[in-house]
Amino acid sequence: MSAFESRTVDGKLLDEVRFLIHRQDSVSLKKLIDPMKPADVADLIEHLGRDEGFFIFGLLEAEGAGDVLMEIEAPVRKRILEALDSKAITQIVEVLDSDDAADLVGDLPADRAREVIEGVRDEVTQELERLLPYPEDTAGGIMALEFVAVRASAAVRDAIESIREKREEVENLYYIWVIDDFDKLVGVISLKDLVLEPPDRKIDEIMNPDVISVNVNADQEEVIHLVRRYDLVNIPVVDDAYRLVGRITYDDIIEAIEDEVDEDISLMAGVIDQEITEHSPIKISRARLPWLLAALFGGILAASVIHQFESSLEKLIALSFFFPVIMAMGGNTGIQTSTVVIRGLATGEISLANTGKRIWMEMRVALINGLTCSLILGLVVALWLDDFGLASVVSTALLLIILISGLVGSAVPLALKKLKIDPALAAGPFITTYNDILSLLIYLSLVTLFLSVRVH
Amino acid sequence: MSAFESRTVDGKLLDEVRFLIHRQDSVSLKKLIDPMKPADVADLIEHLGRDEGFFIFGLLEAEGAGDVLMEIEAPVRKRILEALDSKAITQIVEVLDSDDAADLVGDLPADRAREVIEGVRDEVTQELERLLPYPEDTAGGIMALEFVAVRASAAVRDAIESIREKREEVENLYYIWVIDDFDKLVGVISLKDLVLEPPDRKIDEIMNPDVISVNVNADQEEVIHLVRRYDLVNIPVVDDAYRLVGRITYDDIIEAIEDEVDEDISLMAGVIDQEITEHSPIKISRARLPWLLAALFGGILAASVIHQFESSLEKLIALSFFFPVIMAMGGNTGIQTSTVVIRGLATGEISLANTGKRIWMEMRVALINGLTCSLILGLVVALWLDDFGLASVVSTALLLIILISGLVGSAVPLALKKLKIDPALAAGPFITTYNDILSLLIYLSLVTLFLSVRVH
Repeated sequence: MSAFESRTVDGKLLDEVRFLIHRQDSVSLKKLIDPMKPADVADLIEHLGRDEGFFIFGLLEAEGAGDVLMEIEAPVRKRILEALDSKAITQIVEVLDSDDAADLVGDLPADRAREVIEGVRDEVTQELERLLPYPEDTAGGIMALEFVAVRASAAVRDAIESIREKREEVENLYYIWVIDDFDKLVGVISLKDLVLEPPDRKIDEIMNPDVISVNVNADQEEVIHLVRRYDLVNIPVVDDAYRLVGRITYDDIIEAIEDEVDEDISLMAGVIDQEITEHSPIKISRARLPWLLAALFGGILAASVIHQFESSLEKLIALSFFFPVIMAMGGNTGIQTSTVVIRGLATGEISLANTGKRIWMEMRVALINGLTCSLILGLVVALWLDDFGLASVVSTALLLIILISGLVGSAVPLALKKLKIDPALAAGPFITTYNDILSLLIYLSLVTLFLSVRVH
Repeated sequence: MSAFESRTVDGKLLDEVRFLIHRQDSVSLKKLIDPMKPADVADLIEHLGRDEGFFIFGLLEAEGAGDVLMEIEAPVRKRILEALDSKAITQIVEVLDSDDAADLVGDLPADRAREVIEGVRDEVTQELERLLPYPEDTAGGIMALEFVAVRASAAVRDAIESIREKREEVENLYYIWVIDDFDKLVGVISLKDLVLEPPDRKIDEIMNPDVISVNVNADQEEVIHLVRRYDLVNIPVVDDAYRLVGRITYDDIIEAIEDEVDEDISLMAGVIDQEITEHSPIKISRARLPWLLAALFGGILAASVIHQFESSLEKLIALSFFFPVIMAMGGNTGIQTSTVVIRGLATGEISLANTGKRIWMEMRVALINGLTCSLILGLVVALWLDDFGLASVVSTALLLIILISGLVGSAVPLALKKLKIDPALAAGPFITTYNDILSLLIYLSLVTLFLSVRVH
């Protein structure tokens, strides 16, 4: 790796920084931090305590402070913003790209946001007012207003002049977009082509008219889908009249992909996003408790289900030995199936066009796995309790449970998707709890039926 | 969205294509497919049956066929490659980028790979022989040999000439890299800067010497980490002597990120990657069975644990009512905690530098959630069974179980990471099963102790 490469935050660096903070040695600290990249300074601040982190942040100039702030995880960023006065925030917002500025202002309490919007230059105020109305998870919510566009009738020379004018303003410029006289998006040119064409060449002769764009109101998921599918590095954002209004860059796209993954994982386990840098156990607990309470009440419901079969248990106390295995098999089958379906829906590999095929596949898999596992469990029960009749009933119950769990695990996420509810919810404790209860019901009903038949 | 936008594969398109295939109407099919983007044709083929998909694939020219093939999911691609003769594969490999060519040849059976390597042009043979030795999940395994580099002593004019020479060969060119006389990487220039500088300007005057690179033997995770952290769109790959040897592009990085996520999710649930396009239920079943069998034997072990406490159950059959709730609470707490830690380790937000802090946070969260849930369960037991003594014991057991599950859920992934084992394994059925057994043990031991004390 390069000599210019990141300074990873390790124990040694942390000790050094803490020692310098303790000595209030700003000069040595600045010398240490200045050559670091914003993402590394952000990481350092995340690793430090509240006051230490704020001390480091205070050493940064406005430009650097903005870049670092955007790299810091949301909970830590929130604490820093709370400690800054509106004037400091205004200075930072002025130097940020429009999309970052809007994100930052959008996260502020309403009154402070108002102060900042009024405090910045008129140009920045206008940009904020254009971007802030878009919901966070739409194309408009993640786009920036910094891009380069030229008219189709212009020449290569003009395009290069446009780039020169925006040299400092537009970072990560790889494509320029071509618009017609009504500002409508009509084409794209890569900088590679631009650098190779003579200055007097007409733009509409060299542009690629096959440009993929996204509507400003489209969902972030749509953006991710297009980028992933067509390997786009930038995607132009257009309004309903197909006029170019913004640009989404690859760093925001990678962030959006990670956000979607985090969102799914969080929903599945019942945890909040960005929990990792959250400093308040109360907040984390508040996010996780609903899932635990759902499981708790599900468990109490399961207890009352078992209670209904008390007489069977009294006849044969060994029936309760198999509660864990019955629930574990239903649970694991359900998780496996729903995980595959949820992930497939998220990446677009499963569409609602092939729903039936997917469920059919899951049923065949469940049949193979169910037969294998129920055969093994049947043998164990037969040998242990020396009761072949009971063994065959337990075995049949397990097969049924695995088949039903496979069906529920694949059908529920697909149904949620059809109802436009996030399918990741199907892997959460709700389905697991439901599976537990259903599995116990099937098992206890079959066994009770068997015991009553045998007695007569 | 653009008029040039993707043709989403829906029921209507599928019906139309199937009808044309049935009529063997290649002319109409070609007319339908030609304007489609490779990713869309790939999606169409994935949605079709085996023979239909192969019919469509057969209509493509070598160049298009290669692009489509690389967009098709691995299991379907494998079937198509099996059906193609070595000559057809050779033609496709010749037109692919070096990284895609190596991936494709690397997936072929050894004898067919040999035939293809010998069949292609000498230049392609050399490229394949350079790339094939690198393991798939290393920087060398995902890099391409297509890039543009110039000497530091050259001028802007020379750089533009280098781009012109490689105009067709190097796609997605946004940066050119600068090397010294020993081929060592010393800087980077964006095409934006290149297009704005006069032709006689010296490269070393305008290059940015602060270039982040990755060693050819580095793990893919390291690549993802660097890209994510520094928002890179291309990353240069260097050998141990710091000589530039390849380039990893944005599309491969997004693919690598998705691969890592898929890998983690797969490991957590015990399913295989790319299961979605796998057509064989036997193969899917074979991947999932080990997880199910682990859960099965864990469940049988749990049964034998319960068996040890049979006399307590005989005294009070209601003890078995609470097996589900006890296991569900331990299980859910474990999943929540391990999910956060695993995801944090994957994104780099949790490092081994702040292990203690993380565990301490998890313990505090577990204490809050444990107190809440055990209070509720205690009340339910007290009111239902009218036994306050038993209620307080069940309640205490639940608190203990939640605390221990929180500890195990956070400590195990961190320990696995330290042992260089994928921490995602900690959310799998092994830990869940272990949690089940431990929870039952704690609950039954405490309750048995209580019952025996009360009897005396």
